[in-house]
Amino acid sequence: MLSWRPRRGYALAVGLMSGTSLDGVDAAVVRLEGEGLDTTAQLMHFHTRPYEEPLQEALRRLCDPAQSDVQTICGMNAWLGERFADAVLEAVREAGLTMDEIDFVSSHGQTIWHMPEPPAGAPYLAPSTLQLGDLAVIAARTGKPTVGDFRPADLAVGGQGAPLVPYGDLVLLRHPERGRLLQNIGGIGNCTVLPAGADPDDVFGFDTGPGNMVIDHVVQRLSEGKLRFDEGGELAARGTPDSRLLAELLLHPYFLQPPPKSTGRELFGAAYAESLLKHAAELGLSDADTIATATALTARSIADACRYLVMPRCRIDEIIVSGGGAHNRTLLRQLAELLPELRVLSSGEIGLDSDAKEAVLFALLGYHFLLGIPNNLPKVTGASRPALLGKLALP
Amino acid sequence: MLSWRPRRGYALAVGLMSGTSLDGVDAAVVRLEGEGLDTTAQLMHFHTRPYEEPLQEALRRLCDPAQSDVQTICGMNAWLGERFADAVLEAVREAGLTMDEIDFVSSHGQTIWHMPEPPAGAPYLAPSTLQLGDLAVIAARTGKPTVGDFRPADLAVGGQGAPLVPYGDLVLLRHPERGRLLQNIGGIGNCTVLPAGADPDDVFGFDTGPGNMVIDHVVQRLSEGKLRFDEGGELAARGTPDSRLLAELLLHPYFLQPPPKSTGRELFGAAYAESLLKHAAELGLSDADTIATATALTARSIADACRYLVMPRCRIDEIIVSGGGAHNRTLLRQLAELLPELRVLSSGEIGLDSDAKEAVLFALLGYHFLLGIPNNLPKVTGASRPALLGKLALP
Repeated sequence: MLSWRPRRGYALAVGLMSGTSLDGVDAAVVRLEGEGLDTTAQLMHFHTRPYEEPLQEALRRLCDPAQSDVQTICGMNAWLGERFADAVLEAVREAGLTMDEIDFVSSHGQTIWHMPEPPAGAPYLAPSTLQLGDLAVIAARTGKPTVGDFRPADLAVGGQGAPLVPYGDLVLLRHPERGRLLQNIGGIGNCTVLPAGADPDDVFGFDTGPGNMVIDHVVQRLSEGKLRFDEGGELAARGTPDSRLLAELLLHPYFLQPPPKSTGRELFGAAYAESLLKHAAELGLSDADTIATATALTARSIADACRYLVMPRCRIDEIIVSGGGAHNRTLLRQLAELLPELRVLSSGEIGLDSDAKEAVLFALLGYHFLLGIPNNLPKVTGASRPALLGKLALP
Repeated sequence: MLSWRPRRGYALAVGLMSGTSLDGVDAAVVRLEGEGLDTTAQLMHFHTRPYEEPLQEALRRLCDPAQSDVQTICGMNAWLGERFADAVLEAVREAGLTMDEIDFVSSHGQTIWHMPEPPAGAPYLAPSTLQLGDLAVIAARTGKPTVGDFRPADLAVGGQGAPLVPYGDLVLLRHPERGRLLQNIGGIGNCTVLPAGADPDDVFGFDTGPGNMVIDHVVQRLSEGKLRFDEGGELAARGTPDSRLLAELLLHPYFLQPPPKSTGRELFGAAYAESLLKHAAELGLSDADTIATATALTARSIADACRYLVMPRCRIDEIIVSGGGAHNRTLLRQLAELLPELRVLSSGEIGLDSDAKEAVLFALLGYHFLLGIPNNLPKVTGASRPALLGKLALP
């Protein structure tokens, strides 16, 4: 039904990513060329538009069944579409390009609920996920075909709807001789395993657990809202993880669950972070030790996943970190200590800017949707078959 | 970007409609041929799958800001997609066709909120509308390209997102010599005005106000839930409209507002019907008189709209009624008495089955989306320009 091909042999696209950490929308201007596994993506410009605090608060309410409602979900879906379109226009202008040169926009959307397994016995609920930022609004405001809403299509063929990033990792970052574990640390941590010379059936990946979500919540609470996150991991560096609290936190059943698996704010959101804070207070931990423990929870959950869920299945030579967590030096140091036999690199060190990575990968997902190339990895998400993830809105 | 043309010179599609009355999903198997204003649509089979009462109740809660939440909206969006896909498969089987013969599905979706003008001063809310029934789920279950989510694209170019039916009315029902007012009576009443020999700029239309929504609510309450609606208008036929209550109801500012305008459950939902019941009780009206008054409210609001908002602008020869309200003989009789100079016909009498009409028209909207033909009427919805309404999901 689609018969699009890039008019100049390559396409210029804007990929949009807005993660579960609710901190803003990322826009990557990307040049895409080639097809299938031979596709290349070159980042031309990266732009972030942070969410202001009242917007973050409004989004947090939207993610909470007790505080969300149909009117706000409806209205913010369109409003976020406008904000995302602004990010597209700004990114293209900053890149020194005009909108005439852009072929399409591809948007992940803002996840406000992710439910691969609805509560048992609840009537009329199916496996589902909900991303806001209306594609019709983005298409109308930018004047460009807009692809997005990728996850529901994977759930519709029996997958978890996540993680989707491994598809792009496979296309852009597989290495012929080295086994790579690509670890993204956003609100949630997710990894992609790319065995040396991987083809689509070799790749697997899963959400490792909390990324920055728990650390950010703890820092915000302990600073009484003055700090939004632990910049560079400096607060955590001043403390020592508490082994009792850490051991208790690692008992969460999610960590032991075999992949495929995915998670979100439902398991590791405010309630979980508040229980960490409560136990830290009971143990009399200092603020620095509490933040160090929250940081170690992310490091340990990533390292344990690597050692117990990944390395028994394939050789890993390098662990490559991306996402906001790649800027947390304490987290990276803890990770290197826990996995001394591996090289710990940032995504930028192998040619794909760490901050821009997810936005670039979602541009790739939209590109393959338009080319009619199935863009999920059934082995990774648990889907029953390859599928064309995405929906298309036209200007 | 789309370059689809029907492979056999014509297309077979299934159009899905699920209206604000929350009574079920209609599926029309339609043969479509030609392009633009010369498109023809032939109904091959019509199938209705009613919503069971607990589902209706769950949907009513979803339409209420005080009872809706993100988890239920997310889960029911996918669940309704499955129900809609079932309706497609059933309709095609009943039509004696196989899915191989079907080219695409086109779904209106279940509206749970419609907000062309967000509350003044509310932050982060944009003009918007929300239809459930995930297109990705329908595409995956039916194996067919699925178009839907039409309304948000009209809102995105400054329109009201409604009414959309006039576009299909223009294409399929305009008459070279007779001025026609096409009145659909679903949960909400909406009309399309087709002057004799109309072209797109001549058409206008708007929501006239309550259709069956208020009558149904009143009948359900007075029968203590035993009856869902006034079949054939028989209950209303036993009573007499109360002119005091009717006059009071007609004072609602919506009726006097000039078009373009659209409305829904927000203005004429449970709260409005309950206030009607309360005033009827205060006046000591019998059940039959109360139902007759609710019926007269729909009839008067339609007739007043015709006489004061339409006939000053163009000559009308015929009023053609469709939707569930076309089966309410008391309503049709009241309408004929209020507009004695016009012929009152049902849609079936001019060749388009009254019950199937909206589902057929949404098949047409999807057909034109796929052909790349703008399928809104800016003069009707208030949009700033013609636009390609819809989103496309692929199997």
